[in-house]
Amino acid sequence: MENYYLGIDLGGTTTKFGLVTTEGRLKKEWWIPTDCRQNGTRIIPDCLASIQKELASELKQKRILGIGMGCPGAVDRVHGTVSNAFNLGWTHAQPIRAAFEQSLCLPFFLENDANAAALGEKWQGSGDGEKDVVFLTLGTGVGGGVILNDQLVTGVGGAGGEIGHFPVTNPHSFDCSCGNSSCLETLVSATGIVKLAESYRLTTATTLNHCPKLTNAIIFAEAEKGDLLALKVVNEAANYLGQACSMIANLLNPHSIIIGGGVAEAKDFLMDRVRARFEQGNFPAVRKTTKLKRASLGKDAGIFGAAYLVKIRNTAG
Amino acid sequence: MENYYLGIDLGGTTTKFGLVTTEGRLKKEWWIPTDCRQNGTRIIPDCLASIQKELASELKQKRILGIGMGCPGAVDRVHGTVSNAFNLGWTHAQPIRAAFEQSLCLPFFLENDANAAALGEKWQGSGDGEKDVVFLTLGTGVGGGVILNDQLVTGVGGAGGEIGHFPVTNPHSFDCSCGNSSCLETLVSATGIVKLAESYRLTTATTLNHCPKLTNAIIFAEAEKGDLLALKVVNEAANYLGQACSMIANLLNPHSIIIGGGVAEAKDFLMDRVRARFEQGNFPAVRKTTKLKRASLGKDAGIFGAAYLVKIRNTAG
Repeated sequence: MENYYLGIDLGGTTTKFGLVTTEGRLKKEWWIPTDCRQNGTRIIPDCLASIQKELASELKQKRILGIGMGCPGAVDRVHGTVSNAFNLGWTHAQPIRAAFEQSLCLPFFLENDANAAALGEKWQGSGDGEKDVVFLTLGTGVGGGVILNDQLVTGVGGAGGEIGHFPVTNPHSFDCSCGNSSCLETLVSATGIVKLAESYRLTTATTLNHCPKLTNAIIFAEAEKGDLLALKVVNEAANYLGQACSMIANLLNPHSIIIGGGVAEAKDFLMDRVRARFEQGNFPAVRKTTKLKRASLGKDAGIFGAAYLVKIRNTAG
Repeated sequence: MENYYLGIDLGGTTTKFGLVTTEGRLKKEWWIPTDCRQNGTRIIPDCLASIQKELASELKQKRILGIGMGCPGAVDRVHGTVSNAFNLGWTHAQPIRAAFEQSLCLPFFLENDANAAALGEKWQGSGDGEKDVVFLTLGTGVGGGVILNDQLVTGVGGAGGEIGHFPVTNPHSFDCSCGNSSCLETLVSATGIVKLAESYRLTTATTLNHCPKLTNAIIFAEAEKGDLLALKVVNEAANYLGQACSMIANLLNPHSIIIGGGVAEAKDFLMDRVRARFEQGNFPAVRKTTKLKRASLGKDAGIFGAAYLVKIRNTAG
């Protein structure tokens, strides 16, 4: 009987489950909608019911060593709870580990979703299994995860990897959800890039003025077609991002810095610009050794990382 | 017979030696001039002769478990060599560990001088012995050291902790010794602060214009007396430094970030300004947990850190 980890990626819209071998092969994947109504009280019971159904049928003959979960919000790794996960409807700390362990009698490990994705990319994605990897995910916000010597840097207050909240010198001073302003996230997330374009477009001749509702995808498409304002916005965002990556590289000189998330789907058009600023800012010995890469697992990074949590944290064997 | 570590801090002017107990008490300290003439060929023989003399007299009854050394330049930890230590007169890689082990028959551990000072402050200084500490030293240049989970982050290319080479958005674009421009070091080191003042003073009414040769100490003294330009320079440098520390804090959320070196001798006058920018840029959970501190060991940090190298790296016991 082969051994497996069960990885769960809990998101605001869907919850994804993956059965992963101890060597990192994804053997089965399924998902359920995340029901955030009624203060999210259905979310964990729905997860448990879905797993129990699979355990009673398709997973009956599989040996599952443990369950890992990546989840939005602030994770308390000691108590296995999560708080501040407002997009799930949760208004106070949720005892997630207790619910899983009582219901399923399997070891359970909880991590922040960006950290889980970082672990996934490190283990089976662009990190090549190397010990030192930093991950940024550019979505609605900007999440980050730092892995050094094969371990997540969680920080003394649980706030390691808050790359989205780097203070950036810039002329906009957009407010951030964290209460500060000028955070990296306000400039290079999908919403940040739209805000950049909005701040310029009405005073400039641009195809973007013909667009009633700007999106990140429209801005990148117009930039690729040569619209000067869209290009200015992409260049500006790439500059902030490349500079931030260069600081990380000069501080930690990791094997690689990996960029994932929806914004990074713009592929080479974005990455070439980020890389130019990154290389320019790197200390010579860092330039030779730290690589900047695009993530390779896409939306599965969270599942792989959640499964990997079991591998690295399950001291029961 | 009590056990001791011998810590050595090799600098461009003096080489300091310290006998440190395994609990971190400095029992004896001495120094010799560093003779950088003749391509620095006398430096290591002088060190060895000084130690042998002490071993034959005062240290005769002491049991020394090993020797650690902090040294300028790029350290190769595998081969125990150092290169790029131009201020010592060394034009090519020096086989330092081989020389010590052959001559003294004691385990020998080599580290970059900023990293050694970081270890010293972590062990016996402002780091309070905590596991996660980042150290910056502001001198002629800016050095740094990152300690996570009690271990130095040396980086895949040996360039971890190059905080002095963070690319900083600023209007000056001063060239840096590393070949880049706009590195943090060009703005907040002792020489950087002088450059900042030089760039402004001739076009501004300031007491600094009466000073034929500006120094960092003069700028701080005039700023404290209320000279507006000197104050502008100190505020600007503090702003760059506080912002860099805030990025480090948001990335790693360490127990503390410690600032040492000659520039930090300006004490509260500088630190209050750095702290204001630091707090402003920190993510809320980081603001509550990561402390910004001034170094407490002064010039002895390197000796303590070199001694601590033996404690953490000597697997022979």
